[in-house]
Amino acid sequence: MNLILLSEDDFRDGRERVRLSGRRLRHVLEVHRAKAGDKLCAGLEGGPIGSGKVTHIDEEVLEMDIELDRKPPEPLPMTLVLALPRPKVLRRVLFSASAMGVKRIFLVNSYRVEKSFWQSPVLGGESIRKQLILGLEQARDTILPCVFLRNRFKPFVEDELPDLARETLQIVAHPTVPEQCPRSAGRPVTLAIGPEGGFIPYEIKRLISIGFSAVNLGERILPVETAVPFLISRLF
Amino acid sequence: MNLILLSEDDFRDGRERVRLSGRRLRHVLEVHRAKAGDKLCAGLEGGPIGSGKVTHIDEEVLEMDIELDRKPPEPLPMTLVLALPRPKVLRRVLFSASAMGVKRIFLVNSYRVEKSFWQSPVLGGESIRKQLILGLEQARDTILPCVFLRNRFKPFVEDELPDLARETLQIVAHPTVPEQCPRSAGRPVTLAIGPEGGFIPYEIKRLISIGFSAVNLGERILPVETAVPFLISRLF
Repeated sequence: MNLILLSEDDFRDGRERVRLSGRRLRHVLEVHRAKAGDKLCAGLEGGPIGSGKVTHIDEEVLEMDIELDRKPPEPLPMTLVLALPRPKVLRRVLFSASAMGVKRIFLVNSYRVEKSFWQSPVLGGESIRKQLILGLEQARDTILPCVFLRNRFKPFVEDELPDLARETLQIVAHPTVPEQCPRSAGRPVTLAIGPEGGFIPYEIKRLISIGFSAVNLGERILPVETAVPFLISRLF
Repeated sequence: MNLILLSEDDFRDGRERVRLSGRRLRHVLEVHRAKAGDKLCAGLEGGPIGSGKVTHIDEEVLEMDIELDRKPPEPLPMTLVLALPRPKVLRRVLFSASAMGVKRIFLVNSYRVEKSFWQSPVLGGESIRKQLILGLEQARDTILPCVFLRNRFKPFVEDELPDLARETLQIVAHPTVPEQCPRSAGRPVTLAIGPEGGFIPYEIKRLISIGFSAVNLGERILPVETAVPFLISRLF
């Protein structure tokens, strides 16, 4: 937790003082081991970042004087379209994508996505939100990404994706194609990543038909949780 | 498992036929759902890759005719020096680094590494080997990385690291420095990554004194399992 993420409800007596308990208090006690007078990095969800000066801390409550004077880091100009991964991988990818500044994530169906993944409790709103917040706290960001679930591939790709991807560099990572992933996109990107085993040829064809380019990441087939930061680093 | 990794012991009647049971059989039954006649990607640990043609498969045994005719992917010309992360993060980083082709990994102590991490069963030889093999199977590689444990920072950095890092680009990722990570190293790299909370100033100073450059990854502080592929993608 490199930033303590605050919500409007944490404030008392106006915008200058917060009172925290629960997970954030525990983390500040056990990891930061902060004492009265210490300054910690803090930010308001959806708003600016700055610092919180600890005025009081005990086993029950953390009180801080808050001064938020800077903008959060720039969002990554990218939409991530991800074939729904297995639940434990999904958790990590949400955390990691949130930390890297991705602000729009579509979790989509694909032929090789196991049906049961769509029933996972990891897809619940609170569960998704938890991973996204962990990512923001890690990266010192405050802007929560939006995550959308699309459990039918074809209508998503035909009816929704063309508008979403308009005027962006449209890339689908696919191990077997000859073209290499470009270095430095130079403009906003829509990045599609398939499931374990990859998109099937029909799905690649549909994506290409609306303007996507299929590119490889080298000879190695990377796991999705590795491929996401690998591709983002290459493109931005 | 994009490649079935074979050892010398799997072969019977010379170098052409293998007989497998256990984890690899289960995977081929349940994920590949292979039948007699199917061809699967296979490779010999430390050796070439190619294909295995299923000649027999049932609940007990998988038999394949093996033809290994290609070299595995090129190793990444990089030594990774990683402050020992918490055990569950370590597992993922070993898997991911192995998949990306890293062949030499030093797990080192640092002021902010919790002492208890050095007692974790994840550091056992078999546990480390398991993650490395999962990475090879994912990436279609056969060359097992070497992992070294160094539980004292100073003697490692003073006595061992200078020789290891000689004639390589020496990079330590550190969030607070102004210099950005270079794109495309153009030569072998020794990459050091600190623990959660970062290397302390003394440690950074020691690394710089032997020739390392401290670089940042942008405004965001990435979790180590994200930072490793992010940096590798940028440098190679």
